Amino acid sequence: MTEVDEGTGHRAVIDLLGVLAYAELTAFDRLAEDARLAPTLDGRAALARMAAAEIAHHERLSARLRELGADVSAAMTPFVAALDAFHDGTRASTWLEGLVKAYVGDGLAADFYREVAAFLPQPDRALVEEVLADTGHADFALREVRAAIAADPKVAGRLALWARRLVGEALTQSQAVIAEHDELAELIITGTGDLAGVGELLGRITAAHSVRMRALGLNP
Amino acid sequence: MTEVDEGTGHRAVIDLLGVLAYAELTAFDRLAEDARLAPTLDGRAALARMAAAEIAHHERLSARLRELGADVSAAMTPFVAALDAFHDGTRASTWLEGLVKAYVGDGLAADFYREVAAFLPQPDRALVEEVLADTGHADFALREVRAAIAADPKVAGRLALWARRLVGEALTQSQAVIAEHDELAELIITGTGDLAGVGELLGRITAAHSVRMRALGLNP
Repeated sequence: MTEVDEGTGHRAVIDLLGVLAYAELTAFDRLAEDARLAPTLDGRAALARMAAAEIAHHERLSARLRELGADVSAAMTPFVAALDAFHDGTRASTWLEGLVKAYVGDGLAADFYREVAAFLPQPDRALVEEVLADTGHADFALREVRAAIAADPKVAGRLALWARRLVGEALTQSQAVIAEHDELAELIITGTGDLAGVGELLGRITAAHSVRMRALGLNP
Repeated sequence: MTEVDEGTGHRAVIDLLGVLAYAELTAFDRLAEDARLAPTLDGRAALARMAAAEIAHHERLSARLRELGADVSAAMTPFVAALDAFHDGTRASTWLEGLVKAYVGDGLAADFYREVAAFLPQPDRALVEEVLADTGHADFALREVRAAIAADPKVAGRLALWARRLVGEALTQSQAVIAEHDELAELIITGTGDLAGVGELLGRITAAHSVRMRALGLNP
């Protein structure tokens, strides 16, 4: 792993914190929306609590952006279109789809952001790791999805297809984001060393995704 | 003000904490939904933060309900229909309508709950007062609505009509709730002393409502 030079680094830090800050705001939105699909008041409150945790993360990232002299809104703006397109293209229509999206989609995104954050200097590396720490989504989603598959094994096939669609849409949108942000692209290539390093990074993310799919009881 | 006897008191405490716990959950929902109407990312983040604060209140109430031996979901269930009917009947279609609803509607509800809580023993009285404390809605909504009226005085008439509709719908639904919950009705009548006391309570709530309307720049 190679350290990035300071000029690229500063711009890339703002970019990464900006995309994360907006990602937390959309995660809030999405969880709040999916909470309404909950079959019970307990499930609805559980998702609402997770949504609230995302906003706490959003606030931590915003505070750091301001500390770095950046305008929070301006730092988020370049990523609005891609993240909105991802969410609009993968709107959950059932409670289980929402949970799979929370577990598989957020897991994938968190792995990616964590890999990129590894190239950042402190304290930003620690901050990104902190806001990416699981807020209870994983266990809750796992429990609910596994119980639903146990009760009706047929749902597994449909949910596996849904998860593949999430991955496809996530790849499309993240390529679009990186193509438009030279500093982020440079950070990733410089950080990983070369294109072979980028391939290894993608390999690690794919492997972690397969582990999550199997944990849900779904074929990757 | 008269203290209520213990049997009625316990049931009424569960009822009041239950209705409040569900009110916070729906307030979360509503703020999360209205956040999407925000004209700026800053406004959207501000409403999302307020929504997150409601969930923190919901958690405090849930913890107390569990402490009292009540099932949180069961305590909320009797109030779902009335509160959902209120929100479905007063769905904001613009950012300003959402803010007026947050300020006028939540203010009205908070005044009512606070009056009822005054008849409760401690620590529940303090808990209710704590979760009803303003989470920044008021100032934010006031600022935004007044700025909008200053920029275009014509919006004041439309928003005043909207506020009247909110009050009408709130009265309809709260009468329905009280009619179905004898212990709550008894708590209010015993607490205020008699029907004249109930009238005074309503007078205080109405006066506070008029103050809020004028603060917004709207005719009550």
